[in-house]
Amino acid sequence: MTQSTSPEPARVAVSTVIFSLRRTDDSAPAELMLPLVRRTRDPFDGLWALPGGWLDPAEELEDAASRTLAETTGLSASYLEQLYAFGGVDRSPARVVSIVYWALLRADEVDAQVAAHAAQGDAPENVEWFDAASLPRLAFDHNEIVEYALWRLRSKVGYSRIAHGLLPPEFTLAELREVYESILGRRLDPANFRRQVEGSGTLFPTDRFRTGSHRPARLYRYDPDVELAERGPLTARH
Amino acid sequence: MTQSTSPEPARVAVSTVIFSLRRTDDSAPAELMLPLVRRTRDPFDGLWALPGGWLDPAEELEDAASRTLAETTGLSASYLEQLYAFGGVDRSPARVVSIVYWALLRADEVDAQVAAHAAQGDAPENVEWFDAASLPRLAFDHNEIVEYALWRLRSKVGYSRIAHGLLPPEFTLAELREVYESILGRRLDPANFRRQVEGSGTLFPTDRFRTGSHRPARLYRYDPDVELAERGPLTARH
Repeated sequence: MTQSTSPEPARVAVSTVIFSLRRTDDSAPAELMLPLVRRTRDPFDGLWALPGGWLDPAEELEDAASRTLAETTGLSASYLEQLYAFGGVDRSPARVVSIVYWALLRADEVDAQVAAHAAQGDAPENVEWFDAASLPRLAFDHNEIVEYALWRLRSKVGYSRIAHGLLPPEFTLAELREVYESILGRRLDPANFRRQVEGSGTLFPTDRFRTGSHRPARLYRYDPDVELAERGPLTARH
Repeated sequence: MTQSTSPEPARVAVSTVIFSLRRTDDSAPAELMLPLVRRTRDPFDGLWALPGGWLDPAEELEDAASRTLAETTGLSASYLEQLYAFGGVDRSPARVVSIVYWALLRADEVDAQVAAHAAQGDAPENVEWFDAASLPRLAFDHNEIVEYALWRLRSKVGYSRIAHGLLPPEFTLAELREVYESILGRRLDPANFRRQVEGSGTLFPTDRFRTGSHRPARLYRYDPDVELAERGPLTARH
């Protein structure tokens, strides 16, 4: 293990992984994507990086993540969950411990926020959305951070209602299956999927149907008693 | 929300929550306990706190947690898992972000480590084990950290083989039930518990039996293919 001999104490930074399901065009399947910011200075000048920045000494961790996310991408999320603290000695030329937060944003939320910034003429620069499954070489250890976030997302989708964060309040089983397929990165058998989901007891069928070019499909809701965020006793900010 | 105006950047510390099942005497039920260290200087002079200390700039986070755990309690764990980063503005007079690690130690591992230090004459001072369910007022936000660790432990015990960390490689169903009862803080019906565990597919019965003052009880093993730690792609240190 390489040990640096930096005499400087570690500095604290925050970074944010925002996942959303987006389509490049209407006929393409939705892909799990995330916004990245192109660095304009060293280290890693010109490479893409997660939104983030330094922690202000008088600022709560989650506030710092929200602020730097807004400053760099113009995006906001109603709730950021702490993902992990990355503090490897060699992840940056200086010693930096990054507290990484994450959130899921619905595509329509993203579109509305992007449109609002465009209307105000303050669209952020140097931001692009990338397919989470095929990223370029990112700055620092950010490829590894995204890989860890994807693993956590895939683990959680199996036992929690986390997919809800990517769906409107009412959705069809085909829409729910598309979310799972995007997260898991593979096709699911529609009949098996329907059976498993209906047997899980976490969904409520509604009396409403999605109509359009296909035959009408029943709309479902999640059981609101199932907790979305796994915060436990952490009700305040930490 | 109170905002301090400290001009000093945040410093990074590490703390460790070690859970073990221990008995105060042979006839008492095992209790979920953790080691605490009495502070001998301000802030919070005289109060009990989690083992921990400052991150050295050239030291990996997990190494810092292992080192400070050993320095303050004489204990070591084969693996420390990152629990959460606590960074509230008001948790300490100075701004401190604490990366908290945790581990489960079997009672016989603890006993062996304590005995080895006693034999070498370097038993740590100011360390005591406390019942996790009835702690005094601790230093900093450490009551809140332990409460969060207990919540995570109770959440995980339901869907993972985390209880294994508190058991020898082979154990009776009564011993396994005692672990669950200690973690969940309530009695479980023996017949229901046996049915659920045998139906879970995560345990293997062995051909061996525990004999002693009671009637012989079959010994079980966990399925080794079930991953103990939820590290995902984090194979190296971070």
